[in-house]
Amino acid sequence: MPHEPSGRLPQPAVGRLSLYFRELHRLNDGGTSHTSSRELGQLVDVSPAVVRRDLSAMGTIGRRGVGYEVVKLIDAIGQLLGSGVQWRVVLVGVGSLGDALLRYRGFERLGFRLTDAFDSDPAKWGRQVGGVLVSDASVMAGRLMETRPELAILAVPADQAPQVAAVLVGAGVSGILNFAPTMLKLPGTTAVVNVDLASELQRLAFSVQNSAR
Amino acid sequence: MPHEPSGRLPQPAVGRLSLYFRELHRLNDGGTSHTSSRELGQLVDVSPAVVRRDLSAMGTIGRRGVGYEVVKLIDAIGQLLGSGVQWRVVLVGVGSLGDALLRYRGFERLGFRLTDAFDSDPAKWGRQVGGVLVSDASVMAGRLMETRPELAILAVPADQAPQVAAVLVGAGVSGILNFAPTMLKLPGTTAVVNVDLASELQRLAFSVQNSAR
Repeated sequence: MPHEPSGRLPQPAVGRLSLYFRELHRLNDGGTSHTSSRELGQLVDVSPAVVRRDLSAMGTIGRRGVGYEVVKLIDAIGQLLGSGVQWRVVLVGVGSLGDALLRYRGFERLGFRLTDAFDSDPAKWGRQVGGVLVSDASVMAGRLMETRPELAILAVPADQAPQVAAVLVGAGVSGILNFAPTMLKLPGTTAVVNVDLASELQRLAFSVQNSAR
Repeated sequence: MPHEPSGRLPQPAVGRLSLYFRELHRLNDGGTSHTSSRELGQLVDVSPAVVRRDLSAMGTIGRRGVGYEVVKLIDAIGQLLGSGVQWRVVLVGVGSLGDALLRYRGFERLGFRLTDAFDSDPAKWGRQVGGVLVSDASVMAGRLMETRPELAILAVPADQAPQVAAVLVGAGVSGILNFAPTMLKLPGTTAVVNVDLASELQRLAFSVQNSAR
């Protein structure tokens, strides 16, 4: 079956695929072997038609009366989303948010392995957080040149973010997940996804204010 | 000047307004009184034309040669996004992520005040985290009926999320920011914004894989 080049999947579809992927893992863990566009749609709160469109864009067609094979869907989506491969990820900034991210158990199963953490505070060096060693941020560049992680999570204060990001890019990191409350502008092909926790709360407040009118 | 009803603003515009808002606060803190669509666009990484369109949809027009008054923009966007008012927010689930969210300093300035936190672990009861008292989750319903918070942040494990959300809705909470890795389905008019940290990392990996081709 022909696969659409993944570059043509729009961002909202990528977000949905990621959610299907999570729910499929949960179904699989619970011993479910087959699912339907209706069930998947209910689990992630979209219509069955949207599920069918998203999955058929990947070249996956459900069989009438049988539905989709859960394991096959996990494989197909995982490959498309880059979770078929192992991604090595470093984290910079072991404050309370960085600490929570190191302890977060949702990354590993999606193929993301946190290999190293860095902080500028000597009190944190040598500690293990969530099984990851925290090292001196000033030796980060040299260490990354050796270990060559693909991705980095940035959980430093806003004013330190551009400088740390520059070091990460210089060491060959291809993508940065940025929790610092500032927009990162990076040279070249480095990908950035910004997560702004306060903006999410603001989006919620906006919805509430709107629906109350 | 006529204001568009905020209900007609599309979600991407709401996201951008929230980012303008953050950068405008930063400009204001730095003593900047006026800004331009070009400067704001650079700060949040969109074109000046998009900035002008977003701001004029709110009824705010920049003056040629002078630009936009920073304080006025903050007021206008804040009102639209619901940050003109104080929102009372409770947090449920003081694990490492909940702990980080209680310590996070970005909420307060946007008008969100964390008033209470709840956890089922007795070891955490009576502790202050980020200035917020942690109480027994089993007395939450009664406490919320007294304090009547508008919003809640859910940072409990996925399997506990539906049950806790039901209690929150029952106590009159209007919106839930959900960090539990599960889709919440709520009755009626309760608004939900889901934040899935692993999905964000997956979006990043997808971009990297794509741009490398």
